[in-house]
Amino acid sequence: MDTTNTAGRRVTLADVARMAGVSKQTASRVVNGSAQVTDETRARVLQCIEVLGFRPSTLARQLTAGRSLTLGVVNNTAVGHLMCGDAYVGMVRQADGMGYALLNKEMSDFSRASVDAMLGQMLERQVDGIILAGPEIGNSHDWLDDYPLDDLPMPLVAINARPRAGVDVVGFDNFLAGQNATRHLLSLQRRRIGHLSGPNNRWVAQRRIEGWQAALDEAGLPECKAYCVEGSWEAESGGPGLQRLLELCPDLDAVFVSSDRMALGVLMEAQRLGIDVPGTLAVMGIDNDPQSAFFTPPLTTMTQDTPRMAEVALRQLVRRICDRHGEPYPAGCAQEESSMLTHRLIVRQSTLGDVAN
Amino acid sequence: MDTTNTAGRRVTLADVARMAGVSKQTASRVVNGSAQVTDETRARVLQCIEVLGFRPSTLARQLTAGRSLTLGVVNNTAVGHLMCGDAYVGMVRQADGMGYALLNKEMSDFSRASVDAMLGQMLERQVDGIILAGPEIGNSHDWLDDYPLDDLPMPLVAINARPRAGVDVVGFDNFLAGQNATRHLLSLQRRRIGHLSGPNNRWVAQRRIEGWQAALDEAGLPECKAYCVEGSWEAESGGPGLQRLLELCPDLDAVFVSSDRMALGVLMEAQRLGIDVPGTLAVMGIDNDPQSAFFTPPLTTMTQDTPRMAEVALRQLVRRICDRHGEPYPAGCAQEESSMLTHRLIVRQSTLGDVAN
Repeated sequence: MDTTNTAGRRVTLADVARMAGVSKQTASRVVNGSAQVTDETRARVLQCIEVLGFRPSTLARQLTAGRSLTLGVVNNTAVGHLMCGDAYVGMVRQADGMGYALLNKEMSDFSRASVDAMLGQMLERQVDGIILAGPEIGNSHDWLDDYPLDDLPMPLVAINARPRAGVDVVGFDNFLAGQNATRHLLSLQRRRIGHLSGPNNRWVAQRRIEGWQAALDEAGLPECKAYCVEGSWEAESGGPGLQRLLELCPDLDAVFVSSDRMALGVLMEAQRLGIDVPGTLAVMGIDNDPQSAFFTPPLTTMTQDTPRMAEVALRQLVRRICDRHGEPYPAGCAQEESSMLTHRLIVRQSTLGDVAN
Repeated sequence: MDTTNTAGRRVTLADVARMAGVSKQTASRVVNGSAQVTDETRARVLQCIEVLGFRPSTLARQLTAGRSLTLGVVNNTAVGHLMCGDAYVGMVRQADGMGYALLNKEMSDFSRASVDAMLGQMLERQVDGIILAGPEIGNSHDWLDDYPLDDLPMPLVAINARPRAGVDVVGFDNFLAGQNATRHLLSLQRRRIGHLSGPNNRWVAQRRIEGWQAALDEAGLPECKAYCVEGSWEAESGGPGLQRLLELCPDLDAVFVSSDRMALGVLMEAQRLGIDVPGTLAVMGIDNDPQSAFFTPPLTTMTQDTPRMAEVALRQLVRRICDRHGEPYPAGCAQEESSMLTHRLIVRQSTLGDVAN
């Protein structure tokens, strides 16, 4: 490595200044491209930089310029959020492609004191912007309602959060997803359509419930709105969820399940109870887990491109950073994009019997 | 926010010095707790810090001390590595608990130039240590053989990599996992035991193959070593993998599959071919995916605690950082730990028929 001297110690600007016989301030001016240096001095300093293998610290330079090329990501991995998987991959790649590093911060308590502490840590590390990636649970994001975000020295973009005045949000249209999933089941002449939801305190789960309800109202089947059971997102809650739905409606003919994982549990329970899927009961999920095409039977689902959501959020954040600094948008982020993404229906055997897929 | 003045600009140490009527150097001494300041001056500077709401930059302070409290994580998300999921969650939590932030860096090409560029970026951002988290594929990690790691100003810990002199590695004993999985099938009187492996250029996949082979040799069944087919880790390769194994050995009575995802594809294909699992064919996976208990039938597997692996790797890295600085290990990292973790057998119906699980 040419960034350390023979003793393994980092070469500093002071070493360069000493060798060039100039002050540290003068050496710093050369590194930062200041005009207040003679050509001769500049040449001497640059030569010493070359000889010593000095690599100016990105952070030191950016601290001077007020930029760290680092974006903070606030996550809540305790709840197994989608940002832990594919979406995280999308975010890392997009950031890497634009020269940004991501700094991860865990957060599960959203009291004002915790929010202040989180923002304080982000400020101390001088991140250029923040992605609020953890899911909105109960009132976890209500601090955004009255926080003076405009006074923060960096912009913030929230993912999959409730719309709020003055807050940039990028996410999926989960209402439309619930509505379109239910419309698919209606198109197959199903008339007693239950819903196994995610946890009721999740914004995402609530919107899917509302979309399911809207489709039932459209179809003149408001009585089905009573067939709603709360699950945990996980496969474990699929079996008990189906049992409870069958208590509410013994001749249920379809169930829209708010995650593929829960749908796997529903399929297993249906098999145990001897219920034919899709003959007696059509089952569909949402997520398009890579494994869902291999369930028994293969699962109809709604695909959500979470890596793309993460990429869009990151590009949005970079545009807001540029806005603050009055800079043009970099290549790859030049256009504003829709911040509301949509799911796409994937039809497989669990609703349609033997289909080519 | 109390960290910006009314114009929204960050309050700087220069603002504090100006208000207190002292030099910037003196103000800096107060912030850094130097003794070379009179009590009266210290009190005045602290009062101005309070009034202005100045928050000293963590980075600025740590640049001075040569520490950034940031750890670099080199990943290769393009190959869907386990570090993208649960293990990443474990790493974020462990880092957060110790006051470290994680800085993510993508890397898929391991030429000397790319390695130099990656290390250069890590140096510029002055990370205190590096986790090499991407999987070892082909010769991707061979640069570690002759790279002067000791000359780097920060330590490095690799995850799930081939052992190399002078390189800290934390990972699973995948040889033992393959051996114990096969021993389980042998204990059930299976005698024609095939293997559907991960990609052959993966270090992890190779070790599992070797463990399977060792168990076959132990049992006096070396002829079974011909029943090995390469898969992709993914469910898609399970069906074709089983077909090929049955061509190699039409009366195969067991298959050890190197991922639960591929095992899902194997189960689906067995069902399609009318092969009874486990009656005719015992099937087992490795990973203990949360969904594998809900497969048809529920899958016997080997559980690997990847969050724990990530935590152990992070603690190991922090100890090596402390070693370099001659500091005591922080609470929670005080003890050296085994860097070789083991899998645990989870027996379900896919090998044992109707069992209580």
